[in-house]
Amino acid sequence: MRATVIHGPDDIRIEEVPDPVVRHPTDAVVRVVNACICGSDLWAYRGVAARTAGQRIGHEFLGVVEAVGAEVHGFRPGDFVVAPFVWSDGTCDFCREGLHTSCPQGGFWGEVGSDGGQGEAVRVPFADGTLVQLPKDAAGEEKLLPGLLALSDVMSTGHHAAVTAGVRPGATVAVVGDGAVGLCGVLAARRIGADRIIALGRHEDRTAIARAFGATDVVAERGDAAVAAVRELTGGKGAHAVLEAVGTEESMRTAISIARDGGAVGYVGVPHGGSAGVAIGEMFDRNVSLRGGVAPARAYIPELLPDVLSGAIDPGLVFDRTVDLDGVPGGYHAMHTREALKVRIAF
Amino acid sequence: MRATVIHGPDDIRIEEVPDPVVRHPTDAVVRVVNACICGSDLWAYRGVAARTAGQRIGHEFLGVVEAVGAEVHGFRPGDFVVAPFVWSDGTCDFCREGLHTSCPQGGFWGEVGSDGGQGEAVRVPFADGTLVQLPKDAAGEEKLLPGLLALSDVMSTGHHAAVTAGVRPGATVAVVGDGAVGLCGVLAARRIGADRIIALGRHEDRTAIARAFGATDVVAERGDAAVAAVRELTGGKGAHAVLEAVGTEESMRTAISIARDGGAVGYVGVPHGGSAGVAIGEMFDRNVSLRGGVAPARAYIPELLPDVLSGAIDPGLVFDRTVDLDGVPGGYHAMHTREALKVRIAF
Repeated sequence: MRATVIHGPDDIRIEEVPDPVVRHPTDAVVRVVNACICGSDLWAYRGVAARTAGQRIGHEFLGVVEAVGAEVHGFRPGDFVVAPFVWSDGTCDFCREGLHTSCPQGGFWGEVGSDGGQGEAVRVPFADGTLVQLPKDAAGEEKLLPGLLALSDVMSTGHHAAVTAGVRPGATVAVVGDGAVGLCGVLAARRIGADRIIALGRHEDRTAIARAFGATDVVAERGDAAVAAVRELTGGKGAHAVLEAVGTEESMRTAISIARDGGAVGYVGVPHGGSAGVAIGEMFDRNVSLRGGVAPARAYIPELLPDVLSGAIDPGLVFDRTVDLDGVPGGYHAMHTREALKVRIAF
Repeated sequence: MRATVIHGPDDIRIEEVPDPVVRHPTDAVVRVVNACICGSDLWAYRGVAARTAGQRIGHEFLGVVEAVGAEVHGFRPGDFVVAPFVWSDGTCDFCREGLHTSCPQGGFWGEVGSDGGQGEAVRVPFADGTLVQLPKDAAGEEKLLPGLLALSDVMSTGHHAAVTAGVRPGATVAVVGDGAVGLCGVLAARRIGADRIIALGRHEDRTAIARAFGATDVVAERGDAAVAAVRELTGGKGAHAVLEAVGTEESMRTAISIARDGGAVGYVGVPHGGSAGVAIGEMFDRNVSLRGGVAPARAYIPELLPDVLSGAIDPGLVFDRTVDLDGVPGGYHAMHTREALKVRIAF
């Protein structure tokens, strides 16, 4: 089969790779229908995050089960499924507690020795613990696919930011970052019932999506000016819940500064740089909490799925370009240069 | 009257100062019965925290109301009261939400222009919002006074660490720091119903109190060895809730490392140094939360008071030395050299 392979910075190739097969009795093989490129893939593309030359890449996909091992009981060939961005055994303490990302047997698609999501098929370890069943007829509804695909990572990650930031009905929320995750954070906050949602972002095409997702205010400033703008919008107090969806020291500093005393920052931007942006003295004086981390998408998909199927939310709007497999290298480039917000891959 | 005054590092004096009087109609004047020296006062004593020469010091006290302003309705002369370590108006949004430490009209005893707790009397701003009524007959029960005095700061602060770390019945808890606050954190965790409480500390006289307060295990190691010891005690997983009661970069690093994936660190040690101990990448991968800050003691005292009065908890055991006002400079020295854990001042 053919799959996306990374050979180094700015060197994404589509190559012939071995067809995945059931290796362990808990494996399934999934034929990919849709995959996509993540903002976090760009860290590898830019050479900021190290990758082994020839490593597979991509961690978001949905598709059709092609084969299952003898110990897979929840899925059979022909099932339509979505995969969270990490696999997990579904049986350990952490999986049972809903923190599948800490499963000791878990792993990340594309890590050395595993298949990546941006290929024609994927071997899925611990299929019963990992995959989530989708309605079979949804596979034929082209309009639904982007939203379902978003559950794999961005929508679940935005939801994690909202949950860990403590978004509640009636809350005032601020979202730092206008990438696909930040936008999904806006949507998640709206879905939970936030009253006011302030989106921080300066790309008008993106803040337009933020408004469509429920943002009531947009702040285009950055740094101190952004802090001042959010304070002004909130009567000087700041936001009860701040969703941090960037991962830089500056964005973390901004997120903490715009949180209301006693509020929380839910951070889901993969931290790049150190902890210098974590203003611990300010957090202490104002009792601002820092929560979040890698999102246990597997725990959230069953909760979010009905709202995608019903059309109550459509996180698929974050995809503004669709390519085929051969278009993937160009898709990386388009996201890198910000020509595209998020690229979907249709097989 | 006479009060404790700080003139510089290692220069604590007892001096004649003006008698406090009701200046605003919401003021009360409290004649101090008991006060104490806080571990955080030592930062000023050691010159690490800056103070203006001649500034008053001390922020924990209980006493008898001597005079009240015309707008004080909840207290009258003769009432026995305890003061939280900050004053607050009791009417703002933050006070009503229980975050009295963020009251815009609030302040800290001993800040420039205010009375400190380590003196014969204190002018209390916003008496109705600040003071908590104690049973009058408790004033005569010498054995109760240390426990009631501890509500002013250390017990409320230990409780804040436990609450923000998410201690629940049945939880496994670790407490970093064997000072008075850490010990009160052990007591607070036990009171909430933690199943296992691991106290990190290497001073045997202090860990003995930790055991009396409910610690089930004591870890004397520090740094990496402490992390390994806690991991071994918890089946490799770490503690659901970690109470950080030191405030150094090393203690923060240890606290984060011994938290279970998905768990939380409740930090109440005043941060000294920067945020280098906040291992943001590790926190992200393992979804470890960082919560806490300056404790809203005023919110907690009403909840904790009945348990002190009934004898269900006795946080007063953290006091291992009692001095009179003239003994205060010696008390600072004794705490600085760790001859004393926490010094009570009886007037």
